[in-house]
Amino acid sequence: MVRFIKKTSKKAGLSPGTLVHVGDIKAEYVRIRVADYGEDYYEEKEITNIEECLPYKKKSTVTWINIDGLHDVDIIEKIGKDFGLHPLVMEDIAHTEQRPKMDEFEDYVFIITQMLLFDEEQNRLKAEQFSVVLGENFVISFQENISDRFDPLRERIRRGKGRIRKMGADYLMYAMIDAIVDDYFIVLEKIGEKVEELDEELVSRPGPELLQKIHNFKRELIFLRKAVWPLRETVSTLERGGSAFIQEKTSVFLKDVYDHTIQVIDTAETLRDIVTGMLDVYISSVSNRLNEVMKLLTVIATIFIPLTFIAGVYGMNFKYMPELEYAWGYPAALFFMLVVGVLMLLWFKSKKFL
Amino acid sequence: MVRFIKKTSKKAGLSPGTLVHVGDIKAEYVRIRVADYGEDYYEEKEITNIEECLPYKKKSTVTWINIDGLHDVDIIEKIGKDFGLHPLVMEDIAHTEQRPKMDEFEDYVFIITQMLLFDEEQNRLKAEQFSVVLGENFVISFQENISDRFDPLRERIRRGKGRIRKMGADYLMYAMIDAIVDDYFIVLEKIGEKVEELDEELVSRPGPELLQKIHNFKRELIFLRKAVWPLRETVSTLERGGSAFIQEKTSVFLKDVYDHTIQVIDTAETLRDIVTGMLDVYISSVSNRLNEVMKLLTVIATIFIPLTFIAGVYGMNFKYMPELEYAWGYPAALFFMLVVGVLMLLWFKSKKFL
Amino acid sequence: MVRFIKKTSKKAGLSPGTLVHVGDIKAEYVRIRVADYGEDYYEEKEITNIEECLPYKKKSTVTWINIDGLHDVDIIEKIGKDFGLHPLVMEDIAHTEQRPKMDEFEDYVFIITQMLLFDEEQNRLKAEQFSVVLGENFVISFQENISDRFDPLRERIRRGKGRIRKMGADYLMYAMIDAIVDDYFIVLEKIGEKVEELDEELVSRPGPELLQKIHNFKRELIFLRKAVWPLRETVSTLERGGSAFIQEKTSVFLKDVYDHTIQVIDTAETLRDIVTGMLDVYISSVSNRLNEVMKLLTVIATIFIPLTFIAGVYGMNFKYMPELEYAWGYPAALFFMLVVGVLMLLWFKSKKFL
Amino acid sequence: MVRFIKKTSKKAGLSPGTLVHVGDIKAEYVRIRVADYGEDYYEEKEITNIEECLPYKKKSTVTWINIDGLHDVDIIEKIGKDFGLHPLVMEDIAHTEQRPKMDEFEDYVFIITQMLLFDEEQNRLKAEQFSVVLGENFVISFQENISDRFDPLRERIRRGKGRIRKMGADYLMYAMIDAIVDDYFIVLEKIGEKVEELDEELVSRPGPELLQKIHNFKRELIFLRKAVWPLRETVSTLERGGSAFIQEKTSVFLKDVYDHTIQVIDTAETLRDIVTGMLDVYISSVSNRLNEVMKLLTVIATIFIPLTFIAGVYGMNFKYMPELEYAWGYPAALFFMLVVGVLMLLWFKSKKFL
Amino acid sequence: MVRFIKKTSKKAGLSPGTLVHVGDIKAEYVRIRVADYGEDYYEEKEITNIEECLPYKKKSTVTWINIDGLHDVDIIEKIGKDFGLHPLVMEDIAHTEQRPKMDEFEDYVFIITQMLLFDEEQNRLKAEQFSVVLGENFVISFQENISDRFDPLRERIRRGKGRIRKMGADYLMYAMIDAIVDDYFIVLEKIGEKVEELDEELVSRPGPELLQKIHNFKRELIFLRKAVWPLRETVSTLERGGSAFIQEKTSVFLKDVYDHTIQVIDTAETLRDIVTGMLDVYISSVSNRLNEVMKLLTVIATIFIPLTFIAGVYGMNFKYMPELEYAWGYPAALFFMLVVGVLMLLWFKSKKFL
Repeated sequence: MVRFIKKTSKKAGLSPGTLVHVGDIKAEYVRIRVADYGEDYYEEKEITNIEECLPYKKKSTVTWINIDGLHDVDIIEKIGKDFGLHPLVMEDIAHTEQRPKMDEFEDYVFIITQMLLFDEEQNRLKAEQFSVVLGENFVISFQENISDRFDPLRERIRRGKGRIRKMGADYLMYAMIDAIVDDYFIVLEKIGEKVEELDEELVSRPGPELLQKIHNFKRELIFLRKAVWPLRETVSTLERGGSAFIQEKTSVFLKDVYDHTIQVIDTAETLRDIVTGMLDVYISSVSNRLNEVMKLLTVIATIFIPLTFIAGVYGMNFKYMPELEYAWGYPAALFFMLVVGVLMLLWFKSKKFL
Repeated sequence: MVRFIKKTSKKAGLSPGTLVHVGDIKAEYVRIRVADYGEDYYEEKEITNIEECLPYKKKSTVTWINIDGLHDVDIIEKIGKDFGLHPLVMEDIAHTEQRPKMDEFEDYVFIITQMLLFDEEQNRLKAEQFSVVLGENFVISFQENISDRFDPLRERIRRGKGRIRKMGADYLMYAMIDAIVDDYFIVLEKIGEKVEELDEELVSRPGPELLQKIHNFKRELIFLRKAVWPLRETVSTLERGGSAFIQEKTSVFLKDVYDHTIQVIDTAETLRDIVTGMLDVYISSVSNRLNEVMKLLTVIATIFIPLTFIAGVYGMNFKYMPELEYAWGYPAALFFMLVVGVLMLLWFKSKKFL
Repeated sequence: MVRFIKKTSKKAGLSPGTLVHVGDIKAEYVRIRVADYGEDYYEEKEITNIEECLPYKKKSTVTWINIDGLHDVDIIEKIGKDFGLHPLVMEDIAHTEQRPKMDEFEDYVFIITQMLLFDEEQNRLKAEQFSVVLGENFVISFQENISDRFDPLRERIRRGKGRIRKMGADYLMYAMIDAIVDDYFIVLEKIGEKVEELDEELVSRPGPELLQKIHNFKRELIFLRKAVWPLRETVSTLERGGSAFIQEKTSVFLKDVYDHTIQVIDTAETLRDIVTGMLDVYISSVSNRLNEVMKLLTVIATIFIPLTFIAGVYGMNFKYMPELEYAWGYPAALFFMLVVGVLMLLWFKSKKFL
Repeated sequence: MVRFIKKTSKKAGLSPGTLVHVGDIKAEYVRIRVADYGEDYYEEKEITNIEECLPYKKKSTVTWINIDGLHDVDIIEKIGKDFGLHPLVMEDIAHTEQRPKMDEFEDYVFIITQMLLFDEEQNRLKAEQFSVVLGENFVISFQENISDRFDPLRERIRRGKGRIRKMGADYLMYAMIDAIVDDYFIVLEKIGEKVEELDEELVSRPGPELLQKIHNFKRELIFLRKAVWPLRETVSTLERGGSAFIQEKTSVFLKDVYDHTIQVIDTAETLRDIVTGMLDVYISSVSNRLNEVMKLLTVIATIFIPLTFIAGVYGMNFKYMPELEYAWGYPAALFFMLVVGVLMLLWFKSKKFL
Repeated sequence: MVRFIKKTSKKAGLSPGTLVHVGDIKAEYVRIRVADYGEDYYEEKEITNIEECLPYKKKSTVTWINIDGLHDVDIIEKIGKDFGLHPLVMEDIAHTEQRPKMDEFEDYVFIITQMLLFDEEQNRLKAEQFSVVLGENFVISFQENISDRFDPLRERIRRGKGRIRKMGADYLMYAMIDAIVDDYFIVLEKIGEKVEELDEELVSRPGPELLQKIHNFKRELIFLRKAVWPLRETVSTLERGGSAFIQEKTSVFLKDVYDHTIQVIDTAETLRDIVTGMLDVYISSVSNRLNEVMKLLTVIATIFIPLTFIAGVYGMNFKYMPELEYAWGYPAALFFMLVVGVLMLLWFKSKKFL
């Protein structure tokens, strides 16, 4: 539950900017991939030594360095020094689960976002920190895991499809954020489907485990909001010309991402309203049902208690009880009981107790 | 329920600006209508080939191209290219259920809104995306469905009634938004009537199905708010001179639409407050009624339990029970029971248990 | 309940600015009164033909035209044309229950507010739209009803008491808004008294009808807020020099009205908090009382059930039950039952069940 | 309860600026005290005729006129005319329970605040309006009651202790507001203590009267907030150089008052959160306790009902019931009942019903 | 509970700026430590006479004076005079539990924050006021307690590790605030763990003491928020160049602290949402369980009441009851009861009452 609070105690007392990896995810190895491209040119390789990407720094073509796996802080440190990153930037990259944000420096912009996945087995959001450094003509991206999330993007660059090869490094960064925001929609879609299932369950077979489930979704939506809300601010700043590294023609695209982010937040809020409404309906209907049961049981008891009393009366041992002597006494008593029972039933019906 | 979350997963991985139709509504065919008018001139035709409307582009008269049906993305693409629309604009047109918004470009303004209808059978809002591109002297409008929503407006242009023929393209766009906002009032009116009915039902025959209905209206009002709230922003920007395509004399009219939008939001909020209040009243009154029933039943049981005890006492088989021998024992016992019962009843009455 | 949603459907499809009267209130006839005054001069008459007020338009003295009754849209149209009012202004005048607002035009300012009355019989707010057009040296005011609301003001002008005859048309408009805001205080006072009565009832004789009453007041306070809140904005704009028609010496007075408006909103909010608190107390105390009753009943039943069991035991027909033979068997059994009953009572008391 | 809504109806229809005293507090007589001081000079007297303070107006030393008792509007009017106060200022002084605010005029600043006292007997806040007019070298303060609230301050001036004699009229006004805000802390302290007591009562002996008490404190905190919140704005404006009558060296002190005001609001909010939390705990624990009682009672009844049934079986009058004939029939039946009772008890225990 | 309301009453009536120690914490003695350092130089000593630190004031190296223990106001006064602190600053230092804030003066900036510790025994936050005065080349810090909180920092300076010795006094102040904010994360971590434990307890063994615990955490989170929220503002002002004493190269670091503060607030809010959710789950599940118990008990009673009635019927003493004479009457009656009992059980099962 408190997965969003990382162990920060091991960092306390250290000098600010000290590199320590903080995070739950530990990739098997660190994969470093370099792609370099211009309008008519594309080069791509996987490297193991970070120095190999240095020559690309000076080239005027767009260079994309993608690092998957953050547990080896030496690599982050090395690349940080090579590209002149501020110690605090390197710390933020290694110390995962940062709040999404943007920091502008003289030579680059630094952006942190959260990549989200919805684990349908556990009904849980999985978050992975995605940090990106955007320079004049390079983009360095950091992921916690070795993933294929950006393979379609890479493929698009490789094939030269669309406008990506004609645009600069800022468009590459935009394309990555766009892909991440698209994932948010998929997450919402999945949660939406689950919520719909839940809603049907609510009608067909409401059980106590529903409560836990509803609360779980509420929690995940809080979590989602926490990850997406600050991104709104970041994208808005970028789009409104808040950074010198964003060209004007990319702004339109960032405006589009901004609109999508707003839509994600809107939808998440609406889902939360709906889930809260479901909670109310659930609680009301559970208590309604229970009350109905109690009412029915009480009605049954209430009908038999007076009848038992009548039986009790004729069970008394008084010597002189004339009714007991009559031949028709017994059937008459039974009939009387029947009449009393039926009358009570009818009265309850007329009063809508049943 | 999650109808407001569109399948976006089929778009993931595609280049931004790729045209894919996303939406539930698929019109039977695509209807393209062109109207061209000046102060003393009116021309109108339905075309099938989008190229036919190109000549109107250069004319100084106001041209209104209305496209009903968005599933054929080729048409959107063609018209987009002809009128120089940005790829993202075309994407937003095809990818329905966008959040209402306004984007200004060099040659045109692009506005997205939601047309709303209240389906009284299902007690549900139906939304349809309405996109409009406003240029110097043309308006291109896109609807998901083939509808007659703008027929009165078209009729007004045709007959040259009112001021519409004397005003520019911006006034035409205004007139369309005005018609859409007028529809919101009709939606509110209908919801209002239904809520009023519900309120009467609440008093006359409160049943468990009311809970579901109340929640349904709450949900629809959340949905309405989600559709209208962002429009407020858009209209406000337009009215305050946020676009070069809006002439000053049209601003007054946009201010009027703005006031109406605020009023819609206000009224929707008030309706929501009222519906929430109804929920509270409903829950209280249901639980009140149930408790009353339980109390009554318990009172009945509580009166008969001591009486049964008395009967039980005289049903004991002790050899020496003097009362049993008396001739008046039985009537005395019955009388005693009556007295006890009546006393209890009176006591309960005095304590206001009944 | 949904009285605040006017039938707007009959307007749908009409050209904007078309004059149609929308509203519940229909005055018996239309009363038009004209007053014209300067520092040492006063003239007043009731006219039937709107043309009669035209000569006053050019006079440098302050002219106040007061129109009571809006159902005859011809009159609004005529006066609108004479004084050069925008079609949308005329529409807003005729189409009542507009949101309070201010629109500035070249030749005049247009202000809409709601006059409120609290109907103590029905515990309901009654709203009436009050529109006023303030020009260089004239004020045209429109009311839905023929009322004497402004008679004290008229009297003050007539007698030349106070500063009103020395000030311009803007002060006249201010005086009218001030009177309307004063009425809000009276409404609050009345609601406050009713709420106080309710609070006493809550303590002395809480009944289920209180719930409905409390909710009713909550609703009326929502309604009041909806009417007053936007006025705050309007007065604030006027006071801060937002209009060329307001002289600086009148600003101080508008600041005063502004303070009063804030106070009205504040008080309404506090009343709402109090009413909400009453609701909580009511629900708690009702359920508390009911629970107490149920507890008492259950205690009674619980005491008699074991006693009945004992009686049942001695009512068994076993041949060999030694106790039954003893002469003191019966009184002993009765005494035993008494002891059991008393012990249970004491135990319940010690456990604070009673 | 609605003590914060003053009778304003008696003012309706009067010209704005008409002096009428509105308020609950009526001092026995009107006390007017004048103090005049410079760095090395101090003079003080109580006057009965307001004219006596006129000569001080022109003196360059600081003059403090303190008027206790507002019911005699003639005095306010006279001093108002002497010092050139705006009619609306005089109206605000006489018409108590104004919202705290600040109005700047050419020759003076006018400030209204609420002095608060916590009446520990009635657990109620008592408010008194404090108005102050700050001119170039004079301060006129108005209180509703004859009080000794400012005696320590007066003593400080008299003795020339601290910096007060070296500072101007603005510092005097600051010192008064500071004293008033200090009182808010005392009020909070007292409410805090009461709330702490309540919290202990909640644990030791929760009773239905607690509910009323908790709600009472909630109400008083709403009331406190209403009185303090607008003061924040006023002090903030003064401190940020919003008035020409505040010297820069006094600004630091006003910043201090501002911080205190924020702290008062903060603490009041926190107290409200705590009181709300207590309400939840109270309601939960009351209902918990009640449910426990009901459960216990039901357990008792449930154990005896089957036993009574068994006794009933052996009380049947069938001719051939073999058990009845056995010598050990009766003890066996009793033993059987015992076993059934014990087994049920154990089962309930194992299920944690007890 | 009301520990956050300090006794301020003893200060009422005193001149503003009068030094009185207000606070719960009283250190054993006052420890004054002075450290003086430049890039290649470090000096450190503990002094008893405050005058000893005066010579450092004029040195261009960074001087850090750390005072632990605030109960001796003379020391604060002396140092305040030596370094030219404003009387209100000295008052704020001595009067603990101030709201975090920043005040800029001509010669120094004054910052107040709260150091927080989570006492795991009592599940309570402990707050200690930390005040710091930042001048051109000196930092004076005040703590309520003698603590080793800044020992790692001191160690870092002593050893000349990291960049601290190369930076100015502003960086030292930053380092201290950074350490304090790091502590907030540790507090959150501990609360998070406790909340997680609570969540497990909620599932495994929900008891009434959980309610109190949950409310306790809610309260502590309110308290935390109250301490951290205003710090956000302070750091934001510093970082955005709000003070002349902050060098630009330190700004980046302050931005980092700012991000951390936001993250603390975010996490605290999320924790509060989670705790609130737990409260709902707790209340629902407790009431659910109780209702289930009541239902089961009622089912048992309801089954036996009709059976007892049947037994009662055959216990009646009518002379002519044919069944009683039959040899198989008794077993038949028992069998009939069994059938009735089983049928009721089955019916209850089919209705899901069990």
